[in-house]
Amino acid sequence: MSPKPRGFPEAEFRQRLQAAQERMGVVGLDALFLSTEPEVRYFTGFLTRFWESPTRPWFLLLPQSGDPIAVIPSIGAHLMAQSWITDIRTWRAPDYDDDGVTLLVDTIAECLPAKARIGVPSGLESHLRMPLASWDALRGAIGARRMVSDHAILRDLRAVKSDYEIAKIREACTIADRSFARIGEIAQTGVPLADVFRQFQILCLEEGADWVGYLAGGAGPGGYGDVITPAVARPLCPGDVLMLDTGVVHDGYYCDFDRNFAIGTVDRAVDDAYARLLEASDQAFTCARPGVTASELFQRMDVIVTGGAGGSDAGRLGHGLGMQLTEWPSLIPADETVLKAGMVLTLEPGIEINPGQTLVHEENIVITATGAEYLSTPAPRNLPRLA
Amino acid sequence: MSPKPRGFPEAEFRQRLQAAQERMGVVGLDALFLSTEPEVRYFTGFLTRFWESPTRPWFLLLPQSGDPIAVIPSIGAHLMAQSWITDIRTWRAPDYDDDGVTLLVDTIAECLPAKARIGVPSGLESHLRMPLASWDALRGAIGARRMVSDHAILRDLRAVKSDYEIAKIREACTIADRSFARIGEIAQTGVPLADVFRQFQILCLEEGADWVGYLAGGAGPGGYGDVITPAVARPLCPGDVLMLDTGVVHDGYYCDFDRNFAIGTVDRAVDDAYARLLEASDQAFTCARPGVTASELFQRMDVIVTGGAGGSDAGRLGHGLGMQLTEWPSLIPADETVLKAGMVLTLEPGIEINPGQTLVHEENIVITATGAEYLSTPAPRNLPRLA
Repeated sequence: MSPKPRGFPEAEFRQRLQAAQERMGVVGLDALFLSTEPEVRYFTGFLTRFWESPTRPWFLLLPQSGDPIAVIPSIGAHLMAQSWITDIRTWRAPDYDDDGVTLLVDTIAECLPAKARIGVPSGLESHLRMPLASWDALRGAIGARRMVSDHAILRDLRAVKSDYEIAKIREACTIADRSFARIGEIAQTGVPLADVFRQFQILCLEEGADWVGYLAGGAGPGGYGDVITPAVARPLCPGDVLMLDTGVVHDGYYCDFDRNFAIGTVDRAVDDAYARLLEASDQAFTCARPGVTASELFQRMDVIVTGGAGGSDAGRLGHGLGMQLTEWPSLIPADETVLKAGMVLTLEPGIEINPGQTLVHEENIVITATGAEYLSTPAPRNLPRLA
Repeated sequence: MSPKPRGFPEAEFRQRLQAAQERMGVVGLDALFLSTEPEVRYFTGFLTRFWESPTRPWFLLLPQSGDPIAVIPSIGAHLMAQSWITDIRTWRAPDYDDDGVTLLVDTIAECLPAKARIGVPSGLESHLRMPLASWDALRGAIGARRMVSDHAILRDLRAVKSDYEIAKIREACTIADRSFARIGEIAQTGVPLADVFRQFQILCLEEGADWVGYLAGGAGPGGYGDVITPAVARPLCPGDVLMLDTGVVHDGYYCDFDRNFAIGTVDRAVDDAYARLLEASDQAFTCARPGVTASELFQRMDVIVTGGAGGSDAGRLGHGLGMQLTEWPSLIPADETVLKAGMVLTLEPGIEINPGQTLVHEENIVITATGAEYLSTPAPRNLPRLA
């Protein structure tokens, strides 16, 4: 495998910043206040698995003009200094008396206009990654009414991927494709599902994943109970359907798709359901292009998998994808997001064959100027058989 | 490898619940409101990697008497039903109009006393995992003044591990021990650090990890720049110190320790620093027992690694460990937490040999009735050499 270029040129970050600043101008925000891993990384390129530690908060201020300001624990200064960010302010965290709040307040006072209105991501799929007590202290110090919604600026910017980002997601998909192609090496009758999970992660790493950020799945006669369960000790049995759903990470970007396999011979109902799932994702793929809505993709699939019942307990039939395993938008009836070139989506139809026996299929696509392209290699037309 | 028992008996969860309810009674709380992965799992056993998806919020209400109530997206109902929790209320998420808030408000009205005071984890290391807009809607609906701090109940309960939890952390440590013992198979002069990272994760999986939740490290002549950087393409060179710091996951519990290796011959300053690091963790280990404070462990190490300067930019010299890679307490001067039997800690002294040339060493220990035990197999006395 030839190594792919890592990171992004500074121009990419400047473009993201400029796009954010233009939107801030339109909605009357003087700054954005960001605290989560993807938000900070989107504007800085700061990539580390250290966010797995919940101890320390990390902050980024984006003024409406000028460069971003990182307000971060000193343990991150060395790594942040390798990014394009030059204004890096640190404190020695954890500090039980004041874990970055005063440094934030001072930075806001120094760098933003008096009474600046500061946007904070507040809508669905967003979180605030700092202790509530620190948040209350921050709002108390600068005035709670100055901290307002970010008007979904982050959500809307991140939903449309650049060519650089698409290349990274494509590479993650290719790594998972190659791993799924080798499934016969590790999954067969008698192998405990826990071993399949472990061995599949090894395949993903061998095929070039930086790490395996997500793996779930299931196996059972005629389907599986859900799609989020971790590994269990039960061995694969003839008649099972095995499903693995993975998010491998390449340079900070995810794929997210699954593949189904028959262990020996399965019920005809399973083959029929599989064929309908593929028809559903085919239909959505054919329909996907700029100007179509997320809701229309949902309808195309829902009519095939539920006869148009309006959805199931899974809640949606696909979603955005990128720096996180799942991103805006959702393929649900209520999502009227208009698709644009550069959006990366999963198509994820599911069918409940019987109660507790579900089949779910998933592909990754990117919206292009004229339609859509697969990023995952589409699943085989017939449910593949394993021994 | 013989499979270890998974999960916990119901009695373990009932004990955790009872301990929380006793404390709620003492501080006058009628319920706890929980939203993060470890908080929900601590009381339910709900274990899934699906939290990697930021889309859906998940909630758990712990009344001051009676069993917990799960208020969760319907996609999780099947898995939650396999836990000991029986009161499971679901909505079909994502719901753009009302993503669980009304269901929460109704559940609170039905299950808690009128004007109940509800504790929310708010201090350091805690987050609220739901959109700010939903949080504001919830507080608006039930009265903002009813949502108060949890008085650190979660933090204090989770800091003391049960024998079942310690066994899981011990197993995670053993898996990492075996993986480090095989480092010579994958790391040598000329191998790019990115390949070392990838291959080391494969070793961890081969040795039995459920997944590799964390891997960071560094390599450089005479030390590395920090301990949180992801893999880079640079090949290992003679004279480098290689450090890998890993958190492998076994049944939802982490280890967190690192190991250092010399590539060929390194400067004598490196060997000297390594010896001092081991002396520091030895001293802290000898000192560790019930009644000693986190701050005292810090002092024991700090006097050796900085001559008593009071710390460095890393911010601390160790921390708690368990369901998360890092947990309460922190080994810093300000942490007066009194150690108790059952606390699991990392001892993590670091030395800056030259600017940008750091060496960090880390062990995992558990506090016992009379002292402490190593969970990681202590590092060799002399810096191990690789080819």
